[in-house]
Amino acid sequence: MRVSPNLALGPGREFDRLRAIYQRLKTPSGLGDDCAVIPFGKTNLVVSIDLSVEGVHFRTDWLDYKAIGARAAAGALSDLAAEGAEPLGLLVSLGLPPSATDDIAADVMEGISRKAGIAAPVLGGDLSRSEKYLVDICVLGRAARPVRRSGARVGDGVWVTGRLGGAALALRELQAGRRAADPFLASRYDDPEPRLAAGRWLAAHGATAMIDISDGLAADAAHVAAASGVALEIELEQVPCWEGVEPLAAAASGEEFELLATLPASFGSDAARDFRLTTALDLTQIGTCAVGEGLRLTLGGRPVPPPPGYDHFAS
Amino acid sequence: MRVSPNLALGPGREFDRLRAIYQRLKTPSGLGDDCAVIPFGKTNLVVSIDLSVEGVHFRTDWLDYKAIGARAAAGALSDLAAEGAEPLGLLVSLGLPPSATDDIAADVMEGISRKAGIAAPVLGGDLSRSEKYLVDICVLGRAARPVRRSGARVGDGVWVTGRLGGAALALRELQAGRRAADPFLASRYDDPEPRLAAGRWLAAHGATAMIDISDGLAADAAHVAAASGVALEIELEQVPCWEGVEPLAAAASGEEFELLATLPASFGSDAARDFRLTTALDLTQIGTCAVGEGLRLTLGGRPVPPPPGYDHFAS
Repeated sequence: MRVSPNLALGPGREFDRLRAIYQRLKTPSGLGDDCAVIPFGKTNLVVSIDLSVEGVHFRTDWLDYKAIGARAAAGALSDLAAEGAEPLGLLVSLGLPPSATDDIAADVMEGISRKAGIAAPVLGGDLSRSEKYLVDICVLGRAARPVRRSGARVGDGVWVTGRLGGAALALRELQAGRRAADPFLASRYDDPEPRLAAGRWLAAHGATAMIDISDGLAADAAHVAAASGVALEIELEQVPCWEGVEPLAAAASGEEFELLATLPASFGSDAARDFRLTTALDLTQIGTCAVGEGLRLTLGGRPVPPPPGYDHFAS
Repeated sequence: MRVSPNLALGPGREFDRLRAIYQRLKTPSGLGDDCAVIPFGKTNLVVSIDLSVEGVHFRTDWLDYKAIGARAAAGALSDLAAEGAEPLGLLVSLGLPPSATDDIAADVMEGISRKAGIAAPVLGGDLSRSEKYLVDICVLGRAARPVRRSGARVGDGVWVTGRLGGAALALRELQAGRRAADPFLASRYDDPEPRLAAGRWLAAHGATAMIDISDGLAADAAHVAAASGVALEIELEQVPCWEGVEPLAAAASGEEFELLATLPASFGSDAARDFRLTTALDLTQIGTCAVGEGLRLTLGGRPVPPPPGYDHFAS
């Protein structure tokens, strides 16, 4: 989730709260989106912050401490990916309960550091006692041409990377007290990959708007529609689904960390093949941008009501 | 508190934990200090992150929500001040218990935003449910010549801005269930000012090392000594104290947000007067840097054992 002061926000409890905050602050900033963008010398500094709290975003009986760190880092880096940015580094605040050993703290940090890789070193951080574990990660990156949520134009195609629905499947296994037998499926939840190279490729190849699928395809498509002032028409039968997942479930699955991008109509199957060769990821057109507003989901030509987005403030 | 991978660290439980983490990570970074410094174009990006947790760093029965936000922002911006950096903006993660209203969330953000001022807008953030209130602030700034902790040289003078001990006095009043009658004193705890202009002035006038006094003068002087590989000799009778505070208590008082700077021996009373005219703050020489290591406190020429530093991990 990212605070988006001046952009039209999608629906949901968390966004109501942000509206209340921004009404009060009267922030003059034109920033928002997945990241804040600050012109800096000849390029742009791109920054985002991502808070993970025990019991809300993760459970210590589902994930080991390295995986908790890796997931938190993946979520933050995914925001950079959605801007088409190159990561520079990250800052980490850790909250640790009195029972946490030094080894646990080092495990969390090792998970973060491994996921971020050498391109994005841990630059600094802060430690505090707290009742529950918490991991807050600020990512720093740069982008000559950052891609916002607000640039989709009527006529653009709507594309998505990878396949959707695996994160929800893998989470369901954890909720049932076991890790998914298929390690590729299990990793969709406990070791997700931020799509950094894919995001930079799409930015360099004309993406007009981009967002990572952390709230679910349907909710994030609605965010792009609201920010861009267009309607996003998505055909559910085109959505690339994880094996055994129905399209509507795939469109509701949160924390997928794939990218939704709008691309000019001229972007076609040849370009998508080049993308696959470069990134070893699928890239699938699932719809188009039309005059109007909001998300229009169809299945076999019939309208389907959008599923609710992933909302940490839902009780 | 700031993570200092490669610099010699001072004593304390929090630093033991950091050592354990950094031993594991084998971070190749040469960063640390109050802030991380990243060369960026023709200048340096200077960043820091500062976590405040209810029950550890603040209590909601002592401070209203605007003051909680203001204090958290002051703490983060003070790290930029200690680098001699100019703030660019900040990112805020808020953790809110289920009982928090939208108004409370907006109060915290308003307190942050007011303290940061127009020079450092809130660029973005994240919201999460959490059991206790938490405020994590990442500050971004720039500095052509950042001042580290590690640059103090034998022969440099040791100087401090403002007067010390007020924060501890004001806190004692809050612990007794009342706000200090003197509003100037009360504000030392509930509305502290980060010394941004003072930090930039000192950086521009040759400061060789700088640190903000968040752990207490004695503890922070020991950090500078450890990072610089010199001894800091401080005469307690020279320490500028808040009225009614003994020098040893002033040297132990944490979260003062004043700056300790080492300056070349050529920096004298004329330069200190210029500082006062520019910043409307005192600047007092309290000691010198000598061959050796650690902090050497004296009172009337006799050695005094250093008081313990402010340590969030102390039980």
